[in-house]
Amino acid sequence: MITVLAGGVGGGRFLQGLVQVLPQREVTVISNTGDDLEMFGLHVSPDIDIVTYHLAGLSPDEQGWGLAGDTFHALEALGRFGHPTWFHLGDRDLATNLHRTVLLRRGQTLSQATAEIARAFGLEVTILPMTDDRVRTRVVTDEGELDFQDYMVQRQADARVRGVQYEGVLEAKPAPGVIEAIMEAEGVVLAPSNPIASIGPILAVPGVRGALVQTKARVAAVSPIVGGAVIKGPADKMLSGMGMEVSAWQVGWLYEDFLDCLVIDHADAGQERRIAGLGLDVVVTDTIMKDRERKAALARTVMDAIRREAK
Amino acid sequence: MITVLAGGVGGGRFLQGLVQVLPQREVTVISNTGDDLEMFGLHVSPDIDIVTYHLAGLSPDEQGWGLAGDTFHALEALGRFGHPTWFHLGDRDLATNLHRTVLLRRGQTLSQATAEIARAFGLEVTILPMTDDRVRTRVVTDEGELDFQDYMVQRQADARVRGVQYEGVLEAKPAPGVIEAIMEAEGVVLAPSNPIASIGPILAVPGVRGALVQTKARVAAVSPIVGGAVIKGPADKMLSGMGMEVSAWQVGWLYEDFLDCLVIDHADAGQERRIAGLGLDVVVTDTIMKDRERKAALARTVMDAIRREAK
Repeated sequence: MITVLAGGVGGGRFLQGLVQVLPQREVTVISNTGDDLEMFGLHVSPDIDIVTYHLAGLSPDEQGWGLAGDTFHALEALGRFGHPTWFHLGDRDLATNLHRTVLLRRGQTLSQATAEIARAFGLEVTILPMTDDRVRTRVVTDEGELDFQDYMVQRQADARVRGVQYEGVLEAKPAPGVIEAIMEAEGVVLAPSNPIASIGPILAVPGVRGALVQTKARVAAVSPIVGGAVIKGPADKMLSGMGMEVSAWQVGWLYEDFLDCLVIDHADAGQERRIAGLGLDVVVTDTIMKDRERKAALARTVMDAIRREAK
Repeated sequence: MITVLAGGVGGGRFLQGLVQVLPQREVTVISNTGDDLEMFGLHVSPDIDIVTYHLAGLSPDEQGWGLAGDTFHALEALGRFGHPTWFHLGDRDLATNLHRTVLLRRGQTLSQATAEIARAFGLEVTILPMTDDRVRTRVVTDEGELDFQDYMVQRQADARVRGVQYEGVLEAKPAPGVIEAIMEAEGVVLAPSNPIASIGPILAVPGVRGALVQTKARVAAVSPIVGGAVIKGPADKMLSGMGMEVSAWQVGWLYEDFLDCLVIDHADAGQERRIAGLGLDVVVTDTIMKDRERKAALARTVMDAIRREAK
């Protein structure tokens, strides 16, 4: 059993590789829910859906979010009623969110609703929200405190970041199975997701970081920072805004207390010794998941790193 | 001021004629809400929306319900999650229902939400739901008691009707403005809508029938039954199932206590004397609203009948 902590697109792409290398039913995903939001009265879970759609093979490759070929007729019509339309929910994507909201209103937990939706998409991967409780990632910027999607999608990440808060996280409990998935795994992988906005909220759920420290499983992370830049999303702006380096080393530093191995790109081979200085194994490979083959190759490299005997 | 009691398609078509003859702001519609339903967690008000879309010029002429050119991508996707898809909510139509549901959850009444939606479609007609309370038309059939939309849309009206119940109607209050719209109107028109399933629930709201009896306004009805058949919908099956004639005379008989004038089609000219025997004025005209011109002509005839001096 392999457990993957994942945000959105980077997580989804990594998982597309992993399920080429492992049977789906041996994979558990712990998904960030810190950028969940209420939109048109619906409970929207962007990261869970991105992961689900990627695993179902329904994601548009370039864009990363939503369903390939989706239309936006309901959204346009909602705009005419004065609703904000900056969060691009397609018509079929809306159906997922309507369904989730119906299940939650019937009294299901987010875990139960997530499992039911994953099954409806034919997945055998176990997708767990990090928590069934309400956690909201708030980005502290020069323009005030913003919800994560507001910061990233509506403002296109152009506000200067000063810090991040995970609202509600201290009261949150890990969703059922989250701690077990870390403690009982053969290996744990932190997908190449935003360390502040995607992995950060998961680590902040009480008990999760402790489990990562204690687990006998090897813990590997794939750096989302390549050559001092980010492949997708605002991780670079968030790291630098918070006074940190935009580097693979910084990613290793953030996870240093529980990480065994950091997987970095050839572009960052020069940082290998510095990262090793954090007490981490370093694997240098091609981390740019451009196509199906490279996704599988990265997953294979990560699995090799995990299956190396524990230090 | 003219007040129109209306169900769905027949009401919508009649109103398309009326607003060619009168300024929109002189028209008030009292809409049936007995076939409202909950679908995908949304509050769906089919008759209010049909009237709104007709007045906005957005209805598909033949089909009558929904928005012309709408797509059904969300509905198809909801079907894959196991939701019933017999109620054909298009993507843009879904947006209207999402918006209504958001407004209701924010604490607005159905009256307020209806007015806001009508404004968003640029209408100056006042559209009032018959009540802000929950009333559900239940059709008693040989196969059991069915919700109206279940009977009409899902079962295509093929169950034998024994009777109709307006669940909740005894506890319902007329929506704000409904009684005033009847008492203070220059004339009241019962649109050519199903007398059992569309007009029936409105008349059953406590106070409405009494207001129709008491008002000084002339009250006219357009018979939805033409030549012993119905133009659209299951009125014929419902009337005959309940042991009544499928005839214009029967329509007059149902409204006899408050009606001044029944407008019937040339096809039913033979019933003129029998209807007059109910104490009603009878106007014989072309009631088939095939095109824009004939809609306006019918509205003009009805307005002439209303403006004739009261008996």
